[in-house]
Amino acid sequence: MTDLHTPLTLHPDAQAQLFTHAHTANTFTDQPVTDDQLHAIYDLAKFPPTAMNVQPLRILYTRPGTTRDRLLTHLAEGNRAKTATAPVTAVLAADTDFHHHLPTTFPVLPGLQERFAADDTTRENTARFNATIQIGYYLLGIRAAGLAAGPMGGFDPTGIDTEFFTDNGWKSLLVVNIGHPGPDAYRPRLPRLTHTDATHTP
Amino acid sequence: MTDLHTPLTLHPDAQAQLFTHAHTANTFTDQPVTDDQLHAIYDLAKFPPTAMNVQPLRILYTRPGTTRDRLLTHLAEGNRAKTATAPVTAVLAADTDFHHHLPTTFPVLPGLQERFAADDTTRENTARFNATIQIGYYLLGIRAAGLAAGPMGGFDPTGIDTEFFTDNGWKSLLVVNIGHPGPDAYRPRLPRLTHTDATHTP
Repeated sequence: MTDLHTPLTLHPDAQAQLFTHAHTANTFTDQPVTDDQLHAIYDLAKFPPTAMNVQPLRILYTRPGTTRDRLLTHLAEGNRAKTATAPVTAVLAADTDFHHHLPTTFPVLPGLQERFAADDTTRENTARFNATIQIGYYLLGIRAAGLAAGPMGGFDPTGIDTEFFTDNGWKSLLVVNIGHPGPDAYRPRLPRLTHTDATHTP
Repeated sequence: MTDLHTPLTLHPDAQAQLFTHAHTANTFTDQPVTDDQLHAIYDLAKFPPTAMNVQPLRILYTRPGTTRDRLLTHLAEGNRAKTATAPVTAVLAADTDFHHHLPTTFPVLPGLQERFAADDTTRENTARFNATIQIGYYLLGIRAAGLAAGPMGGFDPTGIDTEFFTDNGWKSLLVVNIGHPGPDAYRPRLPRLTHTDATHTP
């Protein structure tokens, strides 16, 4: 697994844990995911950059019970069984009201809150784009806690937003199961595009 | 720096390198960034998940010279000086023609390529959303190579797409300087939202 000639400086164990060996999980054991683990994942994933430090990612956590049951009704049918029993299922969302934090989080540009307040379209686009970059950080943060992530795009975003987010301006982007991988958790690894496929140097 | 009570299992050095100690750089030394480093960054960042393995992130690399000069004209004025001399500046883009790879990258769902081909809006939204998640993976990949990233949202996306991407369906999302941090590379760390600010557990 270790390539002694790699130009990467990140320790090979960390490469494996976050990137190369980690794998999307589709089943989970009943071993709990603690509040402390969720807190630590956020406190790691909050650091990498967003534009003007906007940090629009928001997270709704559900455990099996009433809230989870309400969430299940908005998922694609193929995602319901595995989500019903996952220790934690997170709804990752973009906060379109992120600008209220800017006087604290980006004091270097006074008036920025007011400029965003006056432009709903730019504000929502900024929220969605930067929260989506943060999703990348967050999914790797789950793996940094030694847990497996199971991200799912198959859900009704309008249904979830109406069910949970009418009061706070959050817009759901992705639903993610979090836990310890259970039996037959993994599907075979699918091919990745090569550096030649994905990059261009004129 | 090390918290012995953390529930994270990722080594503290790796936490620091990718998340907590790393910092957006605004100046760079003239120490080169090699093709091998760029290749290794991609080969790490390609692994974390995208929906249906679509992998729409594409990267245009520029070094100082003609292509870089063409790029500079489309950047916000405040971003031009630092970008002029950065060893590598990457344009991160979404490939709206990603679906041509699906027979290879997602063979488990035959006909998916044709369904995306018939729906331009869904295809572009899928490309932009998943490429943006991959930007999160990619920025951490730059740090995994021991390099600093300087992401910039201040540019004219239509200008860049017209200049570079009329033939291939790429849509520019973010411009990123890559190199070794130079003198006064870092601005002070701005505050991050707390777990309480950003999460909700009913």
